Amino acid sequence: MSDSTTTIDRYLDAFGEPDPDRRRALVGETFAENATLADPPIDATGHDGLTEMFGVVQQHYPGHTFRRTSGVDEHHGVARYEWELATDGGGSAITGTDIVRFGADGRIASVVGFFGPIPERLD
Amino acid sequence: MSDSTTTIDRYLDAFGEPDPDRRRALVGETFAENATLADPPIDATGHDGLTEMFGVVQQHYPGHTFRRTSGVDEHHGVARYEWELATDGGGSAITGTDIVRFGADGRIASVVGFFGPIPERLD
Repeated sequence: MSDSTTTIDRYLDAFGEPDPDRRRALVGETFAENATLADPPIDATGHDGLTEMFGVVQQHYPGHTFRRTSGVDEHHGVARYEWELATDGGGSAITGTDIVRFGADGRIASVVGFFGPIPERLD
Repeated sequence: MSDSTTTIDRYLDAFGEPDPDRRRALVGETFAENATLADPPIDATGHDGLTEMFGVVQQHYPGHTFRRTSGVDEHHGVARYEWELATDGGGSAITGTDIVRFGADGRIASVVGFFGPIPERLD
């Protein structure tokens, strides 16, 4: 498993980690200081902002965890992969795709997440 | 059709435009001055770099054009969509997904392209 994949999986662990201190430690390990994360309804910046945002999301989805559901496809320091927000019963509350850009030290500089599949072309 | 979608479609027109002057004009219209583009085997920076790179790709795929094959899914100034490198016979030489970040003036600041579908998780 590549360093990138390990970093991604530990970031997803952070997103679902209910203990604030452990969550903050995982965020510091996996994200650069001024890293940004943007999902369609929410965004955050920096270790404190990310730690707080992950806690807010957990309040909406108690007991849920994030799990990578695809391989990691990476080039030029940018990776994509699919994930699910898994319920404690084994179901899937949300599925999505993350685009992660890594910084020079291997930690995440930015994440942009998209929900569900890419929409069909209608025009 | 949104401004973003129009900009994306004109960028894809630029990628397949064989006339260097028209290609350069489309690049200037759709990309910020120091914009970057990275596909798995190739990358370029700036209007001149992009114009040249598009020409190099066309030498490998003469008569081909780029076509958007999905809707445009955008939030926080970042969009994703699928495309194909279409042969002049109507087939598809390469399919991929672009991640486009827009700058403040609405032109493209960066493109990262991925080829084919997201790989399955094997571990």
